[in-house]
Amino acid sequence: MSMASRRTFLAAGAAGAAAGTVGAATGTSYPKLVHHVFFWLKNPGSKDDLAKLLAGLRTLEKIESVRGLHVGVPAAAEARPVADSSYHASELLFFDDLAGQEAYQVHPIHKQFVDDCSHLWERVVVYDTISV
Amino acid sequence: MSMASRRTFLAAGAAGAAAGTVGAATGTSYPKLVHHVFFWLKNPGSKDDLAKLLAGLRTLEKIESVRGLHVGVPAAAEARPVADSSYHASELLFFDDLAGQEAYQVHPIHKQFVDDCSHLWERVVVYDTISV
Repeated sequence: MSMASRRTFLAAGAAGAAAGTVGAATGTSYPKLVHHVFFWLKNPGSKDDLAKLLAGLRTLEKIESVRGLHVGVPAAAEARPVADSSYHASELLFFDDLAGQEAYQVHPIHKQFVDDCSHLWERVVVYDTISV
Repeated sequence: MSMASRRTFLAAGAAGAAAGTVGAATGTSYPKLVHHVFFWLKNPGSKDDLAKLLAGLRTLEKIESVRGLHVGVPAAAEARPVADSSYHASELLFFDDLAGQEAYQVHPIHKQFVDDCSHLWERVVVYDTISV
């Protein structure tokens, strides 16, 4: 992340927090686009495979258009019929806009991640959401 | 959101941004828990129903344990086999921990939202993710 974009994120983050929101799109520089990806491993019992995937996901924050990254696993929340906790890892990325997401898709760091890690998962589900 | 928790969020947000991340859990006060809910409307063609649901979702930011809220609709991203853009609205909430999410579930504002809006949707999928 360049210093310029980091400053934009800090400023926008402060504005968002002042309104008690993340991504409420009160300013044009606020990260409006959420890219949330859920991964199901081929070998769910392999701690090594999970660790390798999580490490790969963490490399994605170096991509210039990424405004925020949250790498996680299912929380031990109360089981509810509507909750899907069957995935093994998730990446949540913020971008300013669709152009940022498209730049990410073709970025060498993202391509390297796919080359290194795509053999680990058997299923991926992606949600791209824009704030309104 | 109380002033105390708002300050915590601002401080945590700045720390997260300085590391180029959101939710990377470098500090104990950082919102680690992501609660992402996708809604499918009973009447997808009704702009009024969508507006009512989005308005209802925006009331949730007033709940004390909510550290951030992103209300959105599917972005016009490139169609990809792994992408699910069939939902009609999404809410992305940050909490400090599972206790914050549990307090939210039973909060009067959340219950009011369910009472007011649950007739609007036919399907909901929830993902609770904790940063690692």
